[in-house]
Amino acid sequence: MEKIRIGITGYGNLGKGVESGLEHFPDMELKAVFTRRDPAGISIRSHGVPVLRYDEIGSYRDRIDVMILCGGSATDLAEQAPVVAGMFNTVDSFDIHARIPEYYGRVNEAALSSRHACIISVGWDPGLFSVARVYSNCILPNGNDYTFWGPGVSQGHSDAVRRIKGVKDAKQYTVPVESAIEKVRRGENPELTKRQKHTRLCYVVPEEGADLNSIERMIRTMPDYFDEYATTVSFISAETLHREHGRMPHGGFVIRSGATGENGINRHIIEYSLKLDSNPEFTSSVLLAYARAAYRLAMRSDFGAKTVLDIPPAMLSALSGAELREKFL
Amino acid sequence: MEKIRIGITGYGNLGKGVESGLEHFPDMELKAVFTRRDPAGISIRSHGVPVLRYDEIGSYRDRIDVMILCGGSATDLAEQAPVVAGMFNTVDSFDIHARIPEYYGRVNEAALSSRHACIISVGWDPGLFSVARVYSNCILPNGNDYTFWGPGVSQGHSDAVRRIKGVKDAKQYTVPVESAIEKVRRGENPELTKRQKHTRLCYVVPEEGADLNSIERMIRTMPDYFDEYATTVSFISAETLHREHGRMPHGGFVIRSGATGENGINRHIIEYSLKLDSNPEFTSSVLLAYARAAYRLAMRSDFGAKTVLDIPPAMLSALSGAELREKFL
Repeated sequence: MEKIRIGITGYGNLGKGVESGLEHFPDMELKAVFTRRDPAGISIRSHGVPVLRYDEIGSYRDRIDVMILCGGSATDLAEQAPVVAGMFNTVDSFDIHARIPEYYGRVNEAALSSRHACIISVGWDPGLFSVARVYSNCILPNGNDYTFWGPGVSQGHSDAVRRIKGVKDAKQYTVPVESAIEKVRRGENPELTKRQKHTRLCYVVPEEGADLNSIERMIRTMPDYFDEYATTVSFISAETLHREHGRMPHGGFVIRSGATGENGINRHIIEYSLKLDSNPEFTSSVLLAYARAAYRLAMRSDFGAKTVLDIPPAMLSALSGAELREKFL
Repeated sequence: MEKIRIGITGYGNLGKGVESGLEHFPDMELKAVFTRRDPAGISIRSHGVPVLRYDEIGSYRDRIDVMILCGGSATDLAEQAPVVAGMFNTVDSFDIHARIPEYYGRVNEAALSSRHACIISVGWDPGLFSVARVYSNCILPNGNDYTFWGPGVSQGHSDAVRRIKGVKDAKQYTVPVESAIEKVRRGENPELTKRQKHTRLCYVVPEEGADLNSIERMIRTMPDYFDEYATTVSFISAETLHREHGRMPHGGFVIRSGATGENGINRHIIEYSLKLDSNPEFTSSVLLAYARAAYRLAMRSDFGAKTVLDIPPAMLSALSGAELREKFL
């Protein structure tokens, strides 16, 4: 069997996750890694796979079936994706919710005119959580949605804390409020404020002689990021941060609470949850499953931009329809 | 907007659930109910909707877009579905796992030759649980699957107890073992026997003067149904059974425990769970969402038998692709 030829653009946590994840996708093989850094300075795990400059990507047009874009949404994808969609089938994890319609439009245009299949915003939110929300809304139209995130490290919030004067390093955990989740699970349909849904936990390494009270106040009052939440700030050493907070766990819960029957007498709860040791490695695995779907879409000439909502579950699997019906239905 | 014209075949718990569920699917309308009983003896909730004999179904060919088959798998669907697929787009809840390949083949043949779209085995298991299993297996190929059912009433097991001599009435609950679920959630990947996953709880109304010890022994030793499980038998009055066990709750958990990274160092848990007050009403809601998909498949001339694994999430929704991307992605 011909393997699906995969390319990776961007060799950060996500790109590395795709590379190591390929071990469990035997119908795919890595053909090349493209980077905007100096390729000479990058050593990858895969033997015999070239690391190339991003601007050489065009020369691989006929040697790669699906390019997995592993850059950041704002800095890389917004610019790269429409360009790469003009040359390859792609999968990416664009996650700036408010900009998705515009991004979709640009990728769609490029993909349609170059006859490629490009699946955007793949991951877990947007991604699997979006899928869970659509299924449960369609099945229980009379109901309420709840999404809780965490416990997990938020990169954006950690960065915001690191930018405060006197902060050397920091990690921020978003923590869902267990009692709120329990209320939702019991079908109480509570109205929840931001504060009632999540708390925020900051581990901060201060610079020598920094004003700890000032740092704590700056964090707690930071608009949008912290001011509407119950926030706990703990000052720790660089060693402790490295030792105890070096991983990137995350996860969350999507819950739909709905009712059927006369006067909504019967209540139903649909819950989808993730508990992830490594946010980037899990996201990489999702990207790989959808790379298979992008390849299949292209094989059947179903071109243009797609999202996870457009892809049937069967298209993610290497098994045939008959095998899936027998094993999984 | 033209509404999707729905027909119901079979007016038991499932058919009634479809009828009442339609209230929350404003893009659909009920056109007729077909029954194998005497229509004169059946009064339905919907005003102005005719109740007709099953053998009149053919006369509605041009007046119904999707026929929802609400009969039992063994007694009704196995025989009706291929016939009705020759006249209508259909949705059904055929749930005898072992017979699905053969059933699929017969419905597929009828649907292809009559140019209809027929989605089989829709519900929650098979159905939403199958969808959850395929997603999580594709995303975490290196892992283990666990499905737990309940707490909920098992119709098959309740019937088995009712057939025992001296039993007037009975209800059987399947109960998942909480400590086993917790082990799975912690990523311990336990090997679990049937006994370690579920217990069985029987509420039995004995006939006057029946030998209770004998009934209890008959239940506990019944092959396949009870002999491999820890089973609790409680004798209660008919009144108590009616008062406390009159509903049909059910649900369950599909959990995938997988690993990524070097030597599988990072573990991930994907969990999908349902907690349902009314098993038939929830199943009816799932049927309605997939009726919309059957209609769409037919509109795009994508004929033949399909399963939930072939249907993209977006196809279940009344919203456009752009609306879904904006609201749910």
